[in-house]
Amino acid sequence: MLAEIAATRGLDLRDDNVQILLTKTVREAGKNNRFAGGSLPLTPRWPVVMDALREPVEFKALASVLNRHYPPDHELLVLTTEDYPPEGGDDIRVRDVAHLGADVLVAVIPSLPILDAHRDPRTLQHIVARLRASDGCPWDRKQTTQSLRNALIDEVYEALDAIDAGDMDNLAEELGDLGLLIMMHAQIAEEAGHFTLEDVYEGITAKVIRRHPHVFGDDSNHDDLDVVGLWKRVKAEEKAAGKLSSTEKAADGQPRSMPALTRAARVLQKHPLTPDQPAPAGPGGEMLAVIAGIIAAGDDPDAVLRDALNQYVSESD
Amino acid sequence: MLAEIAATRGLDLRDDNVQILLTKTVREAGKNNRFAGGSLPLTPRWPVVMDALREPVEFKALASVLNRHYPPDHELLVLTTEDYPPEGGDDIRVRDVAHLGADVLVAVIPSLPILDAHRDPRTLQHIVARLRASDGCPWDRKQTTQSLRNALIDEVYEALDAIDAGDMDNLAEELGDLGLLIMMHAQIAEEAGHFTLEDVYEGITAKVIRRHPHVFGDDSNHDDLDVVGLWKRVKAEEKAAGKLSSTEKAADGQPRSMPALTRAARVLQKHPLTPDQPAPAGPGGEMLAVIAGIIAAGDDPDAVLRDALNQYVSESD
Repeated sequence: MLAEIAATRGLDLRDDNVQILLTKTVREAGKNNRFAGGSLPLTPRWPVVMDALREPVEFKALASVLNRHYPPDHELLVLTTEDYPPEGGDDIRVRDVAHLGADVLVAVIPSLPILDAHRDPRTLQHIVARLRASDGCPWDRKQTTQSLRNALIDEVYEALDAIDAGDMDNLAEELGDLGLLIMMHAQIAEEAGHFTLEDVYEGITAKVIRRHPHVFGDDSNHDDLDVVGLWKRVKAEEKAAGKLSSTEKAADGQPRSMPALTRAARVLQKHPLTPDQPAPAGPGGEMLAVIAGIIAAGDDPDAVLRDALNQYVSESD
Repeated sequence: MLAEIAATRGLDLRDDNVQILLTKTVREAGKNNRFAGGSLPLTPRWPVVMDALREPVEFKALASVLNRHYPPDHELLVLTTEDYPPEGGDDIRVRDVAHLGADVLVAVIPSLPILDAHRDPRTLQHIVARLRASDGCPWDRKQTTQSLRNALIDEVYEALDAIDAGDMDNLAEELGDLGLLIMMHAQIAEEAGHFTLEDVYEGITAKVIRRHPHVFGDDSNHDDLDVVGLWKRVKAEEKAAGKLSSTEKAADGQPRSMPALTRAARVLQKHPLTPDQPAPAGPGGEMLAVIAGIIAAGDDPDAVLRDALNQYVSESD
């Protein structure tokens, strides 16, 4: 019967991948809405069949779940007790689900075509793979790990600008740009046989779980928890087990590619220039000496240079 | 019958969320394996029921699909024609699926508990939400958009170190660390009612599709495609439609938070110091003058400062 009702809307449940979703799962996911991200591994790209919904709390839970995964005007098909015996059920938009009144016997949520299923993380992954494939985009196909290197820097500083400006709409956009770059790097790595995006997820997810035994393990005495001490212990265990493959850092413990001025400030803060240890000769040494003077005066070399630069730029306008 | 066979392995298909997966979908996803990321929105967190697999190409496709989503020793339950009439079917590990011989009438893939389903992107999202919830981790709960600001810088330069060292294992790890930060920022934003991770995906996915009409639209004459020109046109249309919410950049067109030395080099390259336009007074101006000299000599100020710093650090050891 369900298949026949669905067929009146052009859905062939016998010839499509289908998700069968239990009401109790939806109810659970709707409980603590702002902390419910990732709790339901639903995809809008395959149709969903659900069983009975009877209580307002269930309609609200379903609404919050659907809002996360679907656009607000996506239509689902519900069959209520009032429609019984069925003539075909009612269509209702995602945005109206919270206000459903009558008991729902069954609901069918049609799938979105992949190019419309923007809220599923696998859609962006697919799109990136598509752009890199032989009939993809010439520009994207030309990119390499190296050619996308500096884009990471630019996108991160754009995200920082959004944070500093308190512009949350822009932060959402910049986080998306960064996420796209991660997917591009993973796709390029997969083509070369190095690793997949799923390998990336596996590594970081296992690491985060491993580093939180006080949340995910038995070891959950929260009150006087020394989180930093705990992390040090877990990291030492990881190192002993060979689980960390950190690229060797520069002698001063900072990433090698960190901007030289940032690194210089961190190093000179710890090891100030002395008559026994002067700056090397040449223009690099001259800069070090100026930087050391700025630090000795209690200022931030990056901010001092930025101020001078702003002054220079505004005067040259 | 299927439900009963599954029940012998402790699976209750009538009391679980279930994915019904068609062989033709698996076959399609297995076609172009290194470009198949995201093509199948499967989750390892819900059991899968599949129908008949008969040809070697289908076993191979299934193997590549399962390898993406499951650990290699995950066991699925297959019922082959040789088992018919069924006594309960056979268990087979994901790593052995490619070598299946006999016709498969039906296969059931049991789900992984959420804390073991590391290869699903929603698991990390859930874990981050869990760490931020009231019974989560004290350290994670204390973080803010601002407190995580500098972690973005550090992680990006660690990713660049991995790229520069050609260390792909480490790149996978650093991309994961960056991905985790994106999810932390999105979770914090969701709690404050600004945006969700799904909003981030929606924005970037719609943008990438919009910017590739030559791939996803009708206008797909690939041969003499001017991709850069096309992007400029699409971006102008986006700007006119108010779709881009870029935070205002500094007067020189660079992100404001970009390291001052990088920005100074870019600005002085375009607008060299002249007698009419000298550097401002003070230590910031002194640095500008040194930087201008380095650029005039055809060198990269960042590299010159880094070399001097390395020399200083090695001498102070």
